[in-house]
Amino acid sequence: MSESVRDIALKARQAARKVMNLDSRAKDAALRAIAAGLRAAKAELQAENLKDLSGAKANGLSAAMIDRLTLSDKVVEGMARALEEIAELPDPVGRINGMSRRPNGLMVGRMRIPLGVVAMIYESRPNVTSDAAGLCLKSGNAVILRGGSEAFNSNIAIVKVIKRVLVEQAISEDAVCFIPVTDRAAVNELLKLEDLIDVVIPRGGEGLIRAVSENSRIPVLKHYNGICHIYVDRDADFEKAYKICLNAKVQRPGTCNAMETLLVDAAVAESFLPEMIRRFKASGVEIRGCERTRAIVPDITPATDSDWPAEFLELILAVKVVDSLEEAVDHIETYSSNHTESIITENYTRAMAFLNQVDSSSVMVNASTRLADGGEYGLGAEVGISTSKLHAYGPMGIEGLTAEKFVCFGDGQIRE
Amino acid sequence: MSESVRDIALKARQAARKVMNLDSRAKDAALRAIAAGLRAAKAELQAENLKDLSGAKANGLSAAMIDRLTLSDKVVEGMARALEEIAELPDPVGRINGMSRRPNGLMVGRMRIPLGVVAMIYESRPNVTSDAAGLCLKSGNAVILRGGSEAFNSNIAIVKVIKRVLVEQAISEDAVCFIPVTDRAAVNELLKLEDLIDVVIPRGGEGLIRAVSENSRIPVLKHYNGICHIYVDRDADFEKAYKICLNAKVQRPGTCNAMETLLVDAAVAESFLPEMIRRFKASGVEIRGCERTRAIVPDITPATDSDWPAEFLELILAVKVVDSLEEAVDHIETYSSNHTESIITENYTRAMAFLNQVDSSSVMVNASTRLADGGEYGLGAEVGISTSKLHAYGPMGIEGLTAEKFVCFGDGQIRE
Repeated sequence: MSESVRDIALKARQAARKVMNLDSRAKDAALRAIAAGLRAAKAELQAENLKDLSGAKANGLSAAMIDRLTLSDKVVEGMARALEEIAELPDPVGRINGMSRRPNGLMVGRMRIPLGVVAMIYESRPNVTSDAAGLCLKSGNAVILRGGSEAFNSNIAIVKVIKRVLVEQAISEDAVCFIPVTDRAAVNELLKLEDLIDVVIPRGGEGLIRAVSENSRIPVLKHYNGICHIYVDRDADFEKAYKICLNAKVQRPGTCNAMETLLVDAAVAESFLPEMIRRFKASGVEIRGCERTRAIVPDITPATDSDWPAEFLELILAVKVVDSLEEAVDHIETYSSNHTESIITENYTRAMAFLNQVDSSSVMVNASTRLADGGEYGLGAEVGISTSKLHAYGPMGIEGLTAEKFVCFGDGQIRE
Repeated sequence: MSESVRDIALKARQAARKVMNLDSRAKDAALRAIAAGLRAAKAELQAENLKDLSGAKANGLSAAMIDRLTLSDKVVEGMARALEEIAELPDPVGRINGMSRRPNGLMVGRMRIPLGVVAMIYESRPNVTSDAAGLCLKSGNAVILRGGSEAFNSNIAIVKVIKRVLVEQAISEDAVCFIPVTDRAAVNELLKLEDLIDVVIPRGGEGLIRAVSENSRIPVLKHYNGICHIYVDRDADFEKAYKICLNAKVQRPGTCNAMETLLVDAAVAESFLPEMIRRFKASGVEIRGCERTRAIVPDITPATDSDWPAEFLELILAVKVVDSLEEAVDHIETYSSNHTESIITENYTRAMAFLNQVDSSSVMVNASTRLADGGEYGLGAEVGISTSKLHAYGPMGIEGLTAEKFVCFGDGQIRE
């Protein structure tokens, strides 16, 4: 290896000082130029991608994995468009909040600043490479990228284009660094550099996230799985409930904000469940019901203990009848992954109780869990969805890549 | 040991669910009742404190340490007053920010919620026990306290009073838990309970904080040391500079926001330094100067390489002459602990450049670093001063013990 992981991180640290002071115009011009550069380099990117694809086929990767790895024309265009969209977002850096005058005349406020150096550790999809670089550049951070081995050649090619454009734009090419080795040891080395790196963001399967969390001395922004619940209350509007529950389960079942368990108030279970389950089945959903559900709709699979904490990510739904809002909240507290939960009700008091008592990162009334998303919430491009409460909780946009320092404008104030 | 660390944490987790839903009136009434309870139990607290004090004397602790350990009448009254002041703060929990209507009609905002279970690991001063319990209760968190062995009997006595009052107030006594063993193994066990504890806050010396950071699987809110700088620019108002620099060094030199290094613009070093150093010496400050400083004021100790990264915490000051704002910022970037830095200048452009380029948690213009404090900033009681950027940066009040979840009010919205 020509360059150590520490050497790369040192370069990123030096670049971070320059990137933090770039004005928005310079950053946005660079983002647009990178987009143009990726479009222009499409043939080059696809040639390198072919190497990864043949490797993947030789290693017997699944068709779904190979699909995610492919830099089709559409994917390259999507990468470029994503960067242009990031350029259009307002710059969070330099924004001052809550400026107020203290009794001694000192003006005190909080200014948004970049975090510094972000390490992004991710798997498969090569488009994460340009997304992460764009999000970090926009928020004034230097980034150290460490992609998966399957996309090694594609990632190198994308980073080459980005660095070329950065140099053309008179921005330090070390603002976007890449770890060009794919062994675990390099990651573990990276995770010990707490003097050089401010935050680690793992993106990928639960195994990756756990491995990073357990080995890191650097704070980790975690985005675990989504075990989302909908609770249909006795005062639910059934038409809203049918529509929302169906959407939450079938519109894109492989996503982390899809519903995995449906909880139904016993008071309406008999009137609600037969039609609801008929619609689910018509959409190809396999239902796994508790005993009380099966007493109402007999022709379904019995749910087992392993179904309640399951993230199915496919057309399977666990269904449970509960006696009260309290039992629903208890079930959620026990099995939820703190991602997103929704109550369907026309009852004001129970809507507010659910909203206040459930402490998942998104809590909804009469809306589909599929709406828990940075784009839907108006945050712009999404860095991820945090399910731990520190720093960011829920969909996280570029503001999540910044911190706030205190700024004080004085006129000679001292401590009395 | 009758109860394992895990058992205690499990109880705290269960209590957290109840405490998070207490309304402000109940929490504030409990805080005032604990204050009254501590005053009423003064004799009991002081009797237990005497055991710690005789142990401390037997172990040869310094007079300063013994002073910090003593539950004098004044200290007990201070503990009670601090709780009453916390009761008067506005409740951060339940506050909804940034509620807006999305294009599909969904109302989306962010609601402040407690973090859940906070573990506080601290040394010596027994008043931290009631402070931490009060701050966590106010912010709707359960807390697990683990104090130092020197204050063991005092801490147990304080916790006993708190639990007695909580029960009287019909609040779960497990809202405030205490680890009644003083060996390191108990702390290390605690630091592995990431399924039960949301955040760890170490308060104490650098050794404690490092040990916690290195062993914790749970996110840690760190409050390291303060190596604060003041830069006197060529356009400084000398009278302001004399007053501010003297205050920053001598008003309370043992605090983390006291100035440790003074940087002086070469353009004014000859006119500024002789009178400034005369005033420092008159206040008993030992000056350690760079070569250029000593060329102007010969009669001072030469600074060595170990003085620039030093947190003296006493009447010693390192002084360095620099050629420009850039050199000052570079020096700060190299040696600062990201706590607080201040520029003294009447020049608008350099004031703003300093404010923007220095990324310490507090950056000031024409004000004493001693003002970097939760109370001075209007945050109310201070949990600590964070010098790492994640979650909280700078003085941290009870808002730092909360997170924000997304709340969505819908009317049947689904993902299209």
